[in-house]
Amino acid sequence: MSDQDSRFMKAAIEIAEKQQTPFGAVLVKDGTIEMSSANETRQLNDPTAHAELLAIRKLAADLEITNLSGYKLYTTCEPCSMCMSAAIWANIDELIYGCSIPEIVNHLDQITLRADSINDYSFRKIKVRGGVLKDDCGKLLRLYS
Amino acid sequence: MSDQDSRFMKAAIEIAEKQQTPFGAVLVKDGTIEMSSANETRQLNDPTAHAELLAIRKLAADLEITNLSGYKLYTTCEPCSMCMSAAIWANIDELIYGCSIPEIVNHLDQITLRADSINDYSFRKIKVRGGVLKDDCGKLLRLYS
Repeated sequence: MSDQDSRFMKAAIEIAEKQQTPFGAVLVKDGTIEMSSANETRQLNDPTAHAELLAIRKLAADLEITNLSGYKLYTTCEPCSMCMSAAIWANIDELIYGCSIPEIVNHLDQITLRADSINDYSFRKIKVRGGVLKDDCGKLLRLYS
Repeated sequence: MSDQDSRFMKAAIEIAEKQQTPFGAVLVKDGTIEMSSANETRQLNDPTAHAELLAIRKLAADLEITNLSGYKLYTTCEPCSMCMSAAIWANIDELIYGCSIPEIVNHLDQITLRADSINDYSFRKIKVRGGVLKDDCGKLLRLYS
């Protein structure tokens, strides 16, 4: 784990904590956080407002583009099949997560398709790494799920 | 195919045609269309604004709920893994599509995971039927992709 990985995952954890949810995500380009979001499904009355999807949507709207090539997505929990697919459609370069789906299912109902499995079926692949600050991310799951 | 299936799929085709895209979707409850949407990724600068996900988001926001139990989703093309997963999170009862993913990939890059496969990995299952007005839906693919 690099210093950058630690810094960006801590930012994802921080935004999750603010909203008292296990799920926080940040989008990073050239070493700078350009967007962050927590899960806001209840606040927004939006069943699709997972942290990752919301961060992608907000950044694309701000930049007035649909292609987020060059961005890395840091997220406290491995994205579900909706969010991993959204990252593929947005052309995100790399995904870095904390807790894995097998860890998340101990706390919450899930679609258990792994991010790498979505990659296997996709016309475009995203680099995937997991386990970054997973103990801290796991604390969020225990506290807020 | 029931009269209702035909009527609702025609409405999904109509909204797709209006936006000159192959992708249109309607959400139906108790025999009434409550929301419709086409793919608006470019118009909205939103890589997640597929027809199905957008219809779900707009209806949930209008009703101020996150649980769309009781709704059926009609869509011109079998939903991608993002949209099928969104339908699961939204607790949609039933999915009815026109063209299948193996038909769509002849025209456009896709994530080729089938809707039924997402069901297989999910804590919650959606009834799935395909092939409704698939020739008309196929015309949209030939015209607009």
